[in-house]
Amino acid sequence: MPEHFTPVPLDKCYRLMNHGPTVLVSARYDGVDNVMAAAWSGVLDYGDAPKVTVVLDKATRTRELIEACGRFALQLPCVAQAKLTVAVGTHSAREMPGKLTRLGVPIFNAPGHELPLVQGCVGWLVCRLLPEPHNQQTYDLFIGQVEAAWADERVFRQGRWHFDEAPDDLRTLHHVAGGQFIVAGRTVQG
Amino acid sequence: MPEHFTPVPLDKCYRLMNHGPTVLVSARYDGVDNVMAAAWSGVLDYGDAPKVTVVLDKATRTRELIEACGRFALQLPCVAQAKLTVAVGTHSAREMPGKLTRLGVPIFNAPGHELPLVQGCVGWLVCRLLPEPHNQQTYDLFIGQVEAAWADERVFRQGRWHFDEAPDDLRTLHHVAGGQFIVAGRTVQG
Repeated sequence: MPEHFTPVPLDKCYRLMNHGPTVLVSARYDGVDNVMAAAWSGVLDYGDAPKVTVVLDKATRTRELIEACGRFALQLPCVAQAKLTVAVGTHSAREMPGKLTRLGVPIFNAPGHELPLVQGCVGWLVCRLLPEPHNQQTYDLFIGQVEAAWADERVFRQGRWHFDEAPDDLRTLHHVAGGQFIVAGRTVQG
Repeated sequence: MPEHFTPVPLDKCYRLMNHGPTVLVSARYDGVDNVMAAAWSGVLDYGDAPKVTVVLDKATRTRELIEACGRFALQLPCVAQAKLTVAVGTHSAREMPGKLTRLGVPIFNAPGHELPLVQGCVGWLVCRLLPEPHNQQTYDLFIGQVEAAWADERVFRQGRWHFDEAPDDLRTLHHVAGGQFIVAGRTVQG
């Protein structure tokens, strides 16, 4: 388990995603792990049955694994992982066998969950796919119900991000285009 | 028309939303305008038929207007509008008749589009609702196809955000909870 890996209560897990970060999507099926990057992901519901959405192109290997196993994880990469995020978003396991090993993506398992999680992220959400064939086929849109969540306690605790009090490298990434990201900045109260 | 209001080509409009900003949602039906805030919005597709999603609670007046007129606008509020964003997200027109006037929300019209747009935002997307009754009823999830987009050219031009070269008050807002926002920060290349 990575250091600082701390459970987030289910009723607060939407706050990991509320500010619109780019995510890494991972899945495992039949002994095969994969991880891809996705900019198009967000919150669909909160409360005691929190839900998330993510858009997964039909060409991706990760989508195939998710459709087979019915589960996926979303995780939030930070500034220190900007190059890794671009790498797993650019190279497909279809053209790069052994992608995770070749790209040096460090994987771990959360106890009780059979999904490959990426070390060094600042938030993780383990989800059960809620099958919606029309959305998946027409829009590449996948819906998941969050079953467990964790965060790096240095930047997320008591249901809030605390980027200002931690190393700058732990801030979340928000993709613009072509591997360029906007970094989560200061906090304001409206 | 606000100063600096500049068209964004359709094939680049997803980049207004790619970094996960909080949006203001507006609609007009039968002479009634309304505007609400939504943190749960995102990109669904790009290219020449760009699509967006937004989650709209059944209790909202704006949702009712959208279902009636089949159109809506998403717009990106900036730091200067943090209080306005919280205000339109907190007060419902159901309990506050004349909400837009009472909250002092400055509205304008883009030429050729019958939708109330909010002055002072830094991006605007005019959308046609793609009716998906199951998603709307089960998940409060609405899908729109973008028909036109504009941005404040001081912060978005040539298909990219340029926050670093403009007043800090023009950065986008990313809601965490309770009226607290993370502000779009610096740019990094992955």
